Amino acid sequence: MFTSSDNSKELFLGIDGGGSKCKAIVMNENNEILGTGTSGPGNPLHGYEQATNSITESAKLALKDAGLENVKLNELNAGVGLAGVNLPVLFKQMKEWKHPFKQMFLAHDLLVACLGAHHSNNGAVIISGTGSCGFSCIDEQEIMVGGHGFPQGDKGSGAWFGLQATKQVLLSLDGIVEPSLMNDVLLKKLDCIDATSIVEKIAGKKATFYAQLANLVFDAAEQGDKVALAIVDEGAEYINSIARSLLTRKPARISMLGGLTPRLKPRLDEELQALLSEPLSAPEVGSVLFARQELAKQQGSNTKQTA
Amino acid sequence: MFTSSDNSKELFLGIDGGGSKCKAIVMNENNEILGTGTSGPGNPLHGYEQATNSITESAKLALKDAGLENVKLNELNAGVGLAGVNLPVLFKQMKEWKHPFKQMFLAHDLLVACLGAHHSNNGAVIISGTGSCGFSCIDEQEIMVGGHGFPQGDKGSGAWFGLQATKQVLLSLDGIVEPSLMNDVLLKKLDCIDATSIVEKIAGKKATFYAQLANLVFDAAEQGDKVALAIVDEGAEYINSIARSLLTRKPARISMLGGLTPRLKPRLDEELQALLSEPLSAPEVGSVLFARQELAKQQGSNTKQTA
Repeated sequence: MFTSSDNSKELFLGIDGGGSKCKAIVMNENNEILGTGTSGPGNPLHGYEQATNSITESAKLALKDAGLENVKLNELNAGVGLAGVNLPVLFKQMKEWKHPFKQMFLAHDLLVACLGAHHSNNGAVIISGTGSCGFSCIDEQEIMVGGHGFPQGDKGSGAWFGLQATKQVLLSLDGIVEPSLMNDVLLKKLDCIDATSIVEKIAGKKATFYAQLANLVFDAAEQGDKVALAIVDEGAEYINSIARSLLTRKPARISMLGGLTPRLKPRLDEELQALLSEPLSAPEVGSVLFARQELAKQQGSNTKQTA
Repeated sequence: MFTSSDNSKELFLGIDGGGSKCKAIVMNENNEILGTGTSGPGNPLHGYEQATNSITESAKLALKDAGLENVKLNELNAGVGLAGVNLPVLFKQMKEWKHPFKQMFLAHDLLVACLGAHHSNNGAVIISGTGSCGFSCIDEQEIMVGGHGFPQGDKGSGAWFGLQATKQVLLSLDGIVEPSLMNDVLLKKLDCIDATSIVEKIAGKKATFYAQLANLVFDAAEQGDKVALAIVDEGAEYINSIARSLLTRKPARISMLGGLTPRLKPRLDEELQALLSEPLSAPEVGSVLFARQELAKQQGSNTKQTA
C-alpha cells in the first residue's frame, strides 16, 4: 500500500472545481487512481472562501477514500483546474491563495478538461453543462470560444435551454405565442399555477437553477413539440458553430463534454458528430496531468517560477 | 398658502416607486401639484428596507419642495404605487408596513400609471423603460401582459435591448457572427478591449445596467446596421403583440410610457402608433387619483376595510 513514508514516490492531487461541485482525485506516479472526493462549489466567481474550502475538503475526502488519512495535504502536488479563473482577476486571487499543498499548479477548467479528454496538448473540447463553451489547446496556444456566462452568453448550455423554455412558457401564458408541451411540465416542475407564480419562483435565480429545466426542452422536442424543437435547433446550431470554429485550428482530437452531452450531441450536424472522439479521462485527471507537466518543466529548468 | 392648520382641506401624497428611483408628489384637493421629490429605489423586490426608506424620504422632499415643512407625514393621505407589488408576497409585505401616513392606499405601479395616463378607470398602457409590460384596467378588471422580469421576460425593454446588444457583440468577438456597428460603441462605453474584459465587467449585472446600453442599439439601427435593426424589429414586434393583446379588451384610451418610448414608439406598427394617446399625467399623479378613489369608497361605505 501507498503510504506517506514511501518517499520514493510522489502523490498527485487533481481538482476540477465547477459552479456546483468540486471533484478531487488522488493518483500515484503511475497515473493510477487511488481515491476520489466531491464537495461543494469550487468556482471562485461564486465566492473565494467557498471555493478554497471546497478544494481543501474534496482533497481530504479523496485521501480518505484512498485509505491515505495519514498523508498530509502538504505532501501532495496539486493540479487545480477551476471554472472562472480564465478571468485574470480570479486567476490572480486564487494564485495568491495560501494553499495547504506541497505545490499548487493552477489552470482554468477548460485546459484540464482538454488535457483529460485527450491526454495530450493537442486537442479541443466543446462543453455543454450548466454553461457552454469551446476550447482548443494546440502547441500551448489556447483559444476559447464562447463561455461568456449567464445570461449574456453560454448559448446551447443547460441554463440557456432552461431559460428559453421559461421565456416561451411565460409568453404563451400571456397569449403572445401558442402554448407548447413544455407549459404543463414547467408549471408542474416549479409547482406553479400561472405566470405570476412562475415569476415569483424564478426571480433572481441563477444558471444552475435554469440548467435543471433543460431536460424538459429535449423531452418535449422528442415528442415533436415545435416550440421545443426550435429551441433545440437554435442551441445545437450554436454548438455547431463552436465546433466549426475549433476545427479550423485542426486539433488532433475533439471531444464533447458536460452534462448535456447525451441529449445535445445527437442533435448536432451529423458530419460534426462523426468527428467527435470520446474523452479519455475526466477533467480532474487532466488536472493531475497538468501538475505533472508543470512539475517536469520545473525540474527541467530551475529558473522557472512556481506557485 | 396651504398649511397644516387649514383643516378644511385634505392633502394628498402620490408615490411612484420603481427599480431605480422613487418619485413623490404632494397635491391639494383641487388636484394642484404643490411639490415634488425624488429619492432612491422604491421597488420592494430589491429590498423592503430601502423601498420604505425611499418612500418616506421622497415624501419629505416633496413637502419641503411645497414649502410645507410644517406638515407632518401623518396628515397625508398617501397613494403608493410600487413596482413589484403585483407579486402577492410583496404586496402583503408592503401592506403590513407600519407607514407614517394618515392612510396608505397601496397599488402596483401599472395601475397608477394607467390612472395617471387616462384620468379614468378605463384605459390601457404599454410600458417600456428598464422593464416592459402591458396593462389594462377596464371596469376595475385588471389584466397584465408580460412584465415577467429580467432576464426571463421584459422583452422589448431597455434591459432586453442592452442584453441583446451585448450577446451579439460577444458572439461577433468570437467570430460566430459578423461584427456590427455596435461592437466599437459597446467596447468603448464599457471601457473594454475584448470579450474577456466585457465578461469581467458585466458579470452579475442587473436590468438597470443593461438598460443603459439600449440607446446604442437604436443609434446603430438608425445608421442602417443590420444586426441592430434585427434586434429593434424583434423588440418592436413584441411590443406590437402586447398592444394588440390589450386592444382586444377595447380600452377607452391606450398610451405608451417609459424611458424607451421616444425611441421605440416610431418603430411600432403604424396603425398601432396612430391609436396611441399621449398620457395625461405621470404615474405619481395616478397614485393620488387612486388614493382619492379609495378614500371616496371608504367614505361611501363604512364597512370597507382600509390600510
